[in-house]
Formats: sequence, structure tokens, C-alpha cells
Amino acid sequence: MKIYESKKLSTQHLKKLLQRPLTGADSIRENVNSIILDVKTGGIISAVKYAKKFDHYNSASIFVSESEFKQAEKSLPEEGMNAIKKAYENIYNFHLLQLPKKITTETQKGILCSRIFKPIENVGLYIPGGTAVLPSTILMLGIPAKIAGCKRVVISTPVQGSKVNSYLLYAAKLCGISEIIKIGGAQGVGLLAYGGKGFRKVDKIFGPGNRYVTTAKLLVNQDFDGAQIDMPAGPSEVLIIADRNANPKFVASDLLSQAEHGADSQVILLTNDLSFAKEVQKEVQIQLNLLPRKSITEKSLRASRIIITNDIYEGVILSNEYAPEHLILNVKNPIRILKNIRNAGSVFIGQYSPESAGDYASGTNHSLPTNGLAKTIGGVTVEMFMKSMTIQKLSKKGLSKIADTIIALANIEGLEAHANAIKVRMKK
Amino acid sequence: MKIYESKKLSTQHLKKLLQRPLTGADSIRENVNSIILDVKTGGIISAVKYAKKFDHYNSASIFVSESEFKQAEKSLPEEGMNAIKKAYENIYNFHLLQLPKKITTETQKGILCSRIFKPIENVGLYIPGGTAVLPSTILMLGIPAKIAGCKRVVISTPVQGSKVNSYLLYAAKLCGISEIIKIGGAQGVGLLAYGGKGFRKVDKIFGPGNRYVTTAKLLVNQDFDGAQIDMPAGPSEVLIIADRNANPKFVASDLLSQAEHGADSQVILLTNDLSFAKEVQKEVQIQLNLLPRKSITEKSLRASRIIITNDIYEGVILSNEYAPEHLILNVKNPIRILKNIRNAGSVFIGQYSPESAGDYASGTNHSLPTNGLAKTIGGVTVEMFMKSMTIQKLSKKGLSKIADTIIALANIEGLEAHANAIKVRMKK
Repeated sequence: MKIYESKKLSTQHLKKLLQRPLTGADSIRENVNSIILDVKTGGIISAVKYAKKFDHYNSASIFVSESEFKQAEKSLPEEGMNAIKKAYENIYNFHLLQLPKKITTETQKGILCSRIFKPIENVGLYIPGGTAVLPSTILMLGIPAKIAGCKRVVISTPVQGSKVNSYLLYAAKLCGISEIIKIGGAQGVGLLAYGGKGFRKVDKIFGPGNRYVTTAKLLVNQDFDGAQIDMPAGPSEVLIIADRNANPKFVASDLLSQAEHGADSQVILLTNDLSFAKEVQKEVQIQLNLLPRKSITEKSLRASRIIITNDIYEGVILSNEYAPEHLILNVKNPIRILKNIRNAGSVFIGQYSPESAGDYASGTNHSLPTNGLAKTIGGVTVEMFMKSMTIQKLSKKGLSKIADTIIALANIEGLEAHANAIKVRMKK
Repeated sequence: MKIYESKKLSTQHLKKLLQRPLTGADSIRENVNSIILDVKTGGIISAVKYAKKFDHYNSASIFVSESEFKQAEKSLPEEGMNAIKKAYENIYNFHLLQLPKKITTETQKGILCSRIFKPIENVGLYIPGGTAVLPSTILMLGIPAKIAGCKRVVISTPVQGSKVNSYLLYAAKLCGISEIIKIGGAQGVGLLAYGGKGFRKVDKIFGPGNRYVTTAKLLVNQDFDGAQIDMPAGPSEVLIIADRNANPKFVASDLLSQAEHGADSQVILLTNDLSFAKEVQKEVQIQLNLLPRKSITEKSLRASRIIITNDIYEGVILSNEYAPEHLILNVKNPIRILKNIRNAGSVFIGQYSPESAGDYASGTNHSLPTNGLAKTIGGVTVEMFMKSMTIQKLSKKGLSKIADTIIALANIEGLEAHANAIKVRMKK
């Protein structure tokens, strides 16, 4: 990782250093769109065609069977299942607190207004395949869906051949999910969004994925016949603000644990101490050499930087502008710093809060906004599996209190029928 | 309005009757996209070019000046200002209750997890121009933005010539909004999303608009350099479930108050009583003839229907499938029916809760999901002007309790650096 000093950089150069690596999603848009449109009309048959082509899918059915679930559980080592169960508990307990409460008030006597939340009935969870098997992502999406009370939860995941990984099946079962389709990629997203003969569409799609999946999600989200989405997922990222009180070994390990996600990941260290920065730089190199995913990690380190800021406060300003998915505050007085953090997905406080704790088991969600979206969107919550609904009940007396107001506003806006709905009720 | 009897219809035909009129947004996509791209590079200068072309804009500055605000207030009648103020109060009081509360828990001893909400710093409110002047929409968006604590709130609204309507300026001022740009349409959305020299971009755009505006919102939402949006707004709609206990005059007035919004609006009445339906039908005709917006209203009544259901319960099923923006329950026992309502934006209970009460002054929000989106999205809330952020703080002891879990999961997922971030901390 290269070290830069903020005081030697122009604003423009500093800004450039904190840019995300380009993903170039636009170039694949046309291809993804044609897959989506094909699946929209052809349903399962079209989706299977693409799964065979791209993933060497060759299952007799697109659905995971009851016996496949049972076999999976039998095949797994106790230790792995226990880890999933323990993570499940912490995540469940934290998310249960998110269940929204009903609001009710009389804005005036006789005018009762309420807001309630109802679960989204049909939701789809996209779980990536590829180099990493991610049961943790099933927990992060399946648990809030379960707490929200979604009636039907479907997982879409690509398979090579015919089998879904046993850990995925075990995690799904824990979350009460029994409908899993063995089709992923753009064709999986298309099938979730549009359904077809033998498979009913869902209303909202959650989950991370590569740029094909993300582009597919964005496309079906533009179509009223398609589906809503949680958020567009970009490459993962971490920003660390650290001072000389931090342990360079810990900081290096956190940078690497994020960098190993994918070649397009980005990790940033902001510190006010040059000699500390150099120690971290050295430690990154030492630890890197021991990693099995070294070649991926090396690639993402190229778009990663260590920046020496004039003080911690400058680090906070840069971080708010960057709006990181993960933010680690490994400084002497993190709580004071936290008060000034305005844009971040998930924040990790102090020496003993590594990002991997939040990735798996502290209880918070790891489905988080990337690419600066933390300015506007939070990570996945129970509420994202629900929607609010407002209710009003007015008595005749209540209505009479705002009758003049409504009629005056309807007149201003030139909407006479709006006024008339009040007048017919207030007559006699 | 034509009357249909559900028992005489095939499922297919019934489904077709409950389809929304087509908007054909796809055909304008290319045009809108070229405007957006032009504004993305050209900023204010490009936006002004289109405003001149489409709206006959000819103001010296795109911004509303201090003196324009002052003049507006002087020019308005007391009655109009009082109506806006009274509506403001009810809306403010109901939305204040929505301010989300912090969640904190120890998922295990030594593992502290919290969730807080922070305001989105820069937001844009789109306020339509055209045939109706809509100060109420400023209240519905400006009030939650103010309660959320957004640092900067900008209004975009098209002007013919150089002046923004005085009621709009008065409503904006009440909401504490002083930055208004006199440019609307796709070019207004583009300017909000991308900014440029002399105007800073916003992070999220709210508000209704015609199909040009909606298409523009969807396009900038696809671009990571663009902006997030509240939701895509379609034509307005109401669904009424009524039985013979309802007053046909009231029901007719509610149907018409929705139908007058625009030629593409849709209104649906579901009732279990044919003779009641015929009375409503007659009343609609009588009241329609008195309306100034009769010709618009007549057009939207063409895509509108009265459907006789076998019972109220069938009405509930159809309504949940339709997922109306506004739902009026004008039946004998509305509270029992309400329990079964799963998809609706805002619900109006009983005889004295006309939709126009919620449009203006009951306290609930009138920015609501259309086009079936009520299955997944609620109306505008304070939380939509904020984003959640999770925080975790682990002690060494806390981390040690989940260390094995994290390492086991990292092994399952093949992410060794994730495990290493724990191992370096647990050593010695």
C-alpha cells in the first residue's frame, strides 16, 4: 500500500485518490438486458438455458428438494453448524429490536392518525456462488425476512452441476427457508422478478452479487412489472481511521480482511502519524504473504491507499465525504470521533472490533451500502422487508375541524372535487 | 363508470379490469436520457437551455431571491396562509412521531451493538408545475425533511416566465427552505442529481411528477454519480370498498376527487350491493357535471370501474392484489376489514374520512406508492430522509466469546484474512 501525505496533495489529487476503482457496468448492460427480457417471456425454460450456458447447470429440477436439505444436514461437521447457529442467535437478537412499532396519535380531537408496518409478502434473496460460499449472507438476509414476517422467501443461487452447497442449505433451513432455485446470475434475478409457469414472481429482491447481478437488479427495478430491490451492491470497502495508539498488526489485519474479498475491493487507512503508517505498511506485507487469497488481495491493494492527514479531524471530514461501507475507528477516543461521523454503513469502535466480527457474528448486518451510497442508504434492516401504511379515521366532528382548511387548500390548488368531498359531508 | 359483476367474469377478465392504464414511459426514455446527459456535463447552462425551450423560462437567475420570498408573503390572502399553516401543524405533529429511536443492546456480554439514524445531508424536492399549483406537496416533503434534520433542502419546480407561485414560496418558507431553483422537468431532475458550477448536487430526490420527471428520476437513480430517489411516481389512484351502509353521495364525491387529478388517474369501487352501485353511478354523473375539471375527470373515469363482488371479503382480496395508493373502507365494520388489508399506501376509515382529508390536512403524508408499489413501499416518511448506521464496540472479552465462531465461518467461506484479524488479536 502506498503512503500519501495530505498536506503535500492538491484538493483535486486527494479527491482522486479517494475515488472508487471503476467497475464499467455500462458495457454489460445490453447483454444483461437481453437475458432479462428473454427470461421475462420464457420463464424457467429460458432461465435454465442461460444457467446451462454460463454455470454448467445440469439439475433435473431447478428447486432444491426436501431430501437434498436432509442430506446436507447429515453431511456437515458439528463445528460448522454450531458456528452458524451461534452467529444466527446474535444476528437474530439484534434484528428483533428493529421490528417497527405502531404510531398512533390524534392530530386533533376526532382525527386519529396511525402508521403501521406490514411485511412484504414475496421476497427473493440472491446468494452469490463463485469462489466463496456464503452461508453468512443467507443469515444476514434470511433473519430479517423471518422477523419481518414475510410469507414467502425464495433464495436464488447459481450452481455448477446440480448441488447447492450444504452450508447454504443448513443456513437457509435455520431461517425457515425451503424454496431455493438453483439458478443465479442475471437469469436468476430475471426469474425472481418476473416468475413464469411453475414459479411465482417476488416483489422485492435482496442481496449482493457481481456486476451482472447488480445490473440485472437495476434493470428489473426500472420495470413496473419487475421488482423492487434493496440497493445496488458495489465492490466491498473499508476505511480505517487510526492513530499511534492502535496496534499496527491489528490495523494491517483489518485492511487485509477487506482486501481479500475481491480484486475490485478498496481499503483506505487515514492516520495522523507517518511512522505508524510505515509500520502498518510493513505489517500488511508480512501478513499478505501468508494468505491463500494473496493474488486477489494484492490486486485490490493497488487501488488502496494510506493517507497521512494533518489531524484526526481531517480524517473524519475525508471519511464523511467518502461514505465508507465499513468504518473502523481505532483511535484513543473513538466515541468522541463517532459523534462527527455522518456517512458510514457500519462502524467498528476500538481495538477489539475488527470488521470480521460484524461480517459474521456481532449481530449487526453485513449487507451494507457501498460506493458512497452510505450518504443516503443504511445497511439491510428488518424494515426493508416491510412497508409502512398510514391510516386515518375521522369523526364527523373531527372532519369539521379541518373542513375549512381542506376546502381552502383545494381552492388554491384548483381541485374542486376535493373540496366537494368535504362539502357533501358537511351539508345538513 | 361502468358496473361489472365479479361472478359473471372470468379470473382473467377480472384481472384485466384491475389493470392500470398504460403510461408508455419507454417511448420517451431516449429523449429524457439525452437531456439528463447534457445537463450532467453542461450544468446550469444546459438546464436553462431546456427550461427556455419547454417552459418559456426567462428569469435572470435560476434561484428565487430573498425579495421574491418577501413579496410573495405580502401578496397572499390571510385565509390561504392560515390554511397552509393549519395543515402544516397536523402534518408536523404526526411526522414528528416518526423520528426513529436509537437501538442498543449487548448481543453478548462485551459485544455492544447499536443502530442510529442520521439525516441525509443534501436532498432535493421536486414540485410539479403545470395545471395545478401544489403547496401541499411542499408541506408533505418539506416537513419530514425538516424533522429529519437534513442540512440542505432544495426545491426544483418549473416556471413559465420568471415567477414561482406565491403559495409555493410561502409553504417553502414555513418548512425552512430558502433554496429554490426555477427549473423543473427532466432538466430540473438532472440538475438536482449532478449539480455543476454554481449549484451543488443533492444525494436524494423526492417528489411526484409527470412521466418525463419520473423517467428522469429512474435514470439518475441508475447512475452511481446520480442520486437516490424516493420512489417512481405513477398516476394517482383510489380504491373504495363500500357496502350499502355507505352514503352514495359521499362515495361518488371520493371517486371524483381522485379522478380529477389527471386523465390517467384510476378509481375503483368494490361493493357487494348492485343497487347501491347504481346509486353511486348516478351520483357520479350528477356531481361530475358541476366540476370545473370535468373533461379531465371524464377521461380518467373511462379506465375506472365499479365491480360487484360476492362479498366484502372478495373485495379485500382484490384490493390486496391491486395494492392501491389510497384505500377507503366505507363499510359497516371497517376495523375488522382493516386487519386483513396487507397492501395499501394510506387507508381511510369510515364515512367521514374522505381522501381529500389525507391529501391536505389530517396529518398523514400524501406522497404515496402508486401502480401496485404499495406491495413493497410505503408513503413518504421521516425515515426516508435519513439513513441508518450500525455501530459495534467489542471488548477483548466480548471478542473472545465469538472468536471461534468467526474463525469457523471464515474457514467455511475460505476467507483466511478474516480469520487472521481475530487470531492476531487473540494471541498473547
